[in-house]
Amino acid sequence: MPKYYDELDAVLRALADPTRRAVVERLAMSPAVVTELAAPFPMALPSFMQHLSVLENAGVITSEKHGRVRTVSLRPGALDILHLWLGEQRTPAEHQADRLGIHLARAAAAPTPKDT
Amino acid sequence: MPKYYDELDAVLRALADPTRRAVVERLAMSPAVVTELAAPFPMALPSFMQHLSVLENAGVITSEKHGRVRTVSLRPGALDILHLWLGEQRTPAEHQADRLGIHLARAAAAPTPKDT
Repeated sequence: MPKYYDELDAVLRALADPTRRAVVERLAMSPAVVTELAAPFPMALPSFMQHLSVLENAGVITSEKHGRVRTVSLRPGALDILHLWLGEQRTPAEHQADRLGIHLARAAAAPTPKDT
Repeated sequence: MPKYYDELDAVLRALADPTRRAVVERLAMSPAVVTELAAPFPMALPSFMQHLSVLENAGVITSEKHGRVRTVSLRPGALDILHLWLGEQRTPAEHQADRLGIHLARAAAAPTPKDT
């Protein structure tokens, strides 16, 4: 099993939880300190830290400690592996629709005969 | 919790397994009958059927029985919910990169001054 598959497993498992997805949604806007990040969630801080740890182990987030404050960020390109895999699962019909879309976009961007 | 979140949970959990992802990869090419689909996997048919059942319950695949033959297909648009969620998690830096990409694509498609 290639390493890519293990990474994908970890990312998918990390995202298969509403709390962890909510953390990702929040961090997509900007990095945040842990206490601020934890505030909207109705759970004890150790439980919340457990969720952060799953996300960090999967490489979805990173964190940095300055003095007593820990700041958490979405890791740049963290979800690329999932984008890539999803892109590969397009069916022949979807590929055909993609090609049609590209053709139409090009046709719309190109000068029409009356413009030339 | 909106229904969308439950669906997303089910899809992510279904995909967080290498066997089930391999099934999705195979079905992205074309529908397949169960026996053909199961052949490459080193497991008993009941275990394999269990994986198919997880994928079907998550709405990722559909199956149809004709006589004694069951054919399995990827459900059209099955992974759209995941595409949608991933698209929403783009960071401000990624949005900026998207806009630059769109600008460059338009500039490349537009007629250059010497063409006019």
